[in-house]
Amino acid sequence: MRLEIVAIGTELLLGHTVNTNAAWLSQELAKIGVDIFFHSTIGDNPARIKEALALARGRSDGMIVTGGLGPTEDDVTTAVIAEFAGMPLILHPEILKKIKDRFRRRKMTMAKLNERQAYLPKGAREIPNRVGTAPGFILAIPQEPSTPKGTRYLPEPEKVPGTFFIAALPGVPREMKPMFLETVQPFLRKQGGPKSVIISKTLRTSGLPESTIAARVRKWLKLKPPVTVGIYAHLGEVDLRIMAKGKNLGKANRAIGKIEKEIRPKIKDVFFGVDEETLESNVVNHLIAKKKTLAVAESCTGGLLTHRITNVSGSSKALTRGLVTYSYESKTALLGVPADLLKKKGAVSREAASMMARRVRQTANTTFGIGITGIAGPTGGTKKKPAGLVYVALATPKKTYCSELFLKGSREEIKWQATQKALNGLRLELAKT
Amino acid sequence: MRLEIVAIGTELLLGHTVNTNAAWLSQELAKIGVDIFFHSTIGDNPARIKEALALARGRSDGMIVTGGLGPTEDDVTTAVIAEFAGMPLILHPEILKKIKDRFRRRKMTMAKLNERQAYLPKGAREIPNRVGTAPGFILAIPQEPSTPKGTRYLPEPEKVPGTFFIAALPGVPREMKPMFLETVQPFLRKQGGPKSVIISKTLRTSGLPESTIAARVRKWLKLKPPVTVGIYAHLGEVDLRIMAKGKNLGKANRAIGKIEKEIRPKIKDVFFGVDEETLESNVVNHLIAKKKTLAVAESCTGGLLTHRITNVSGSSKALTRGLVTYSYESKTALLGVPADLLKKKGAVSREAASMMARRVRQTANTTFGIGITGIAGPTGGTKKKPAGLVYVALATPKKTYCSELFLKGSREEIKWQATQKALNGLRLELAKT
Repeated sequence: MRLEIVAIGTELLLGHTVNTNAAWLSQELAKIGVDIFFHSTIGDNPARIKEALALARGRSDGMIVTGGLGPTEDDVTTAVIAEFAGMPLILHPEILKKIKDRFRRRKMTMAKLNERQAYLPKGAREIPNRVGTAPGFILAIPQEPSTPKGTRYLPEPEKVPGTFFIAALPGVPREMKPMFLETVQPFLRKQGGPKSVIISKTLRTSGLPESTIAARVRKWLKLKPPVTVGIYAHLGEVDLRIMAKGKNLGKANRAIGKIEKEIRPKIKDVFFGVDEETLESNVVNHLIAKKKTLAVAESCTGGLLTHRITNVSGSSKALTRGLVTYSYESKTALLGVPADLLKKKGAVSREAASMMARRVRQTANTTFGIGITGIAGPTGGTKKKPAGLVYVALATPKKTYCSELFLKGSREEIKWQATQKALNGLRLELAKT
Repeated sequence: MRLEIVAIGTELLLGHTVNTNAAWLSQELAKIGVDIFFHSTIGDNPARIKEALALARGRSDGMIVTGGLGPTEDDVTTAVIAEFAGMPLILHPEILKKIKDRFRRRKMTMAKLNERQAYLPKGAREIPNRVGTAPGFILAIPQEPSTPKGTRYLPEPEKVPGTFFIAALPGVPREMKPMFLETVQPFLRKQGGPKSVIISKTLRTSGLPESTIAARVRKWLKLKPPVTVGIYAHLGEVDLRIMAKGKNLGKANRAIGKIEKEIRPKIKDVFFGVDEETLESNVVNHLIAKKKTLAVAESCTGGLLTHRITNVSGSSKALTRGLVTYSYESKTALLGVPADLLKKKGAVSREAASMMARRVRQTANTTFGIGITGIAGPTGGTKKKPAGLVYVALATPKKTYCSELFLKGSREEIKWQATQKALNGLRLELAKT
């Protein structure tokens, strides 16, 4: 089955709200074998909603509409769908009662406007809403017999004629999500037709640029469905996502497993986790498993490294302390970094970072110490020491390593990349032990 | 001028990435009077990209495409646009040189694949990319003379025949944004046609729940275009957005100014800034202006408060140090919080938070000290001290305040809300001085 997702709302077109519903719905639909080839967003405008319906009916088996179900005059989704389907709007007394009860429970008077929400197109099935007042609905109408519109460039009609489903849901995520999971998903599962699921697994790496990773796995990047591999670069991180379409979850999982087994040796040195695993969770879990401890002294990253580490539940077992030594004075007072060294070499120097790492390790009595100093920018840089210059040092029981980085981006991006480097350095060190 | 925004990327259709570009672009385009009636998302699929181009050419004056400009074989945007326009791809030696230089500067070898990025459709104008390797481009092609497609339900062709603009940008936001602002926006400004702008101003508050704020400004929430007011709640924050449509920037700005003047007295006690201003920028700027200093001791927030403060450029003038005392031992060693107190009252207690705030203030010799301790969860809670229990203390030269919070949400949401409370407390204290 092939559906498309249409979001309705002028606030989306104006950019005041980011459409997160489309991504969430897509993930949920992929899990039950529904293909999604189009997301679109339009305003609360009857002509354009009808145009989207006509377009979707020409190329898909149905559409999920989010938004425009509210009580105000702006909310036209239900009326337009009814008109498109050629069905009148019918009052559902049981829905009206639910809405009234809801207001009564909250000791509020129901506005006359809210009555509109009790009308659904004839033939529609209610999607109950436990969180808000707007019910959703599912409506099935015949497919258009004529040639699909707007598909001039598609080699052939991509869909089989039959029934066209419209599921209308509110735009508010905390109402939409349970409604989808409780009513729409079970409904779609029951629809016939061949089904196959799409799942994915992401292999995450840090330490090499996208082009180098791409060169290593070029062969797999060329794979065609049902199993494909995509590459995605983030700040200080490159992900490989293996995606498989299969008759069922077991088959799709096995297809992914096969490719993963082939790729993993190619990225052995940079791989740090799958899916939701992060550099920080990798590091924290390895520290705990190996009974090692860590202390951190940050200057330009200003607490971000410690924040990321402490986002991992259980991190208190591994991290004992973090110091943000933002001033010269605090570097000396808290870490005993000699004022002399700071004066001679500068607070942003290989020597200062190394000394911070060593001293925080010693004073906290931990296995490892990390020291970071640099210029996060946009101000504070000089010709010799530009914004983006960062030193990241790691003190181990045996020696201290220090990297010099020239980072680009906004202040927050520079902070982030510096912490990526620090976490990846510790990850590599832990892999050795 | 009417444009549509088309995002290209299979990862978007699968829901692995949320399309934040469309919202950002829409806001920027509204500011220069460009109407956006459609956002859409399609996969890296030549047939569907062409379909989207044909559809857009039938109903809009142009389209902004994001994504699919990378160096890999998946990235087909440039080639498909060239084919659609009937233009060959031309090698731009100056772009190739820039890409090569970029790799050279980073002491990396350019992969052969990256050469693809130096080809643009004939007649296209480069949109330089200072952040990454993928250049974008603007291409103007004639409007299709025939009837617009897919517009059966639109009362009449909504656009004037003429030139159809295609601006192609990378999907990575930190590359796309400067490229849009530096090249595409100035280009669009130069195009003719009637213009009316839509702009907005957000008044940000912290300290009261959404329903209380809504009750105070109910009258304005009912306004109808051309000037409207919306209310939006976030964690520890409620925003009021005033939006105005006007013939030009000056008129729209005056309309917003009028409403702002009416609303501001109603939210005087909770208002902390407009638009991009944050609690942390408010606090840092006031600290600097009043020549006050701050030191922070965090436990459960794990560095997030210091991170937020140091995100503000210039914060080193106000913040001297931050301590993340994640262990009992570090609270005693770094802050001199008596082991006895921690044992008797617990590390998560009003007494511990207050002592942390006082001690960090004393040892750092600053005007203010903040101490935070609590249970971020999801593990570590008990019946008496559940996850989400957080104490936030502020030590001033005169006295120490401490709030007890029972927060809900994920580990990161609890950390965030605790820092909101800490920043807002300091904001209120600074307002007094």
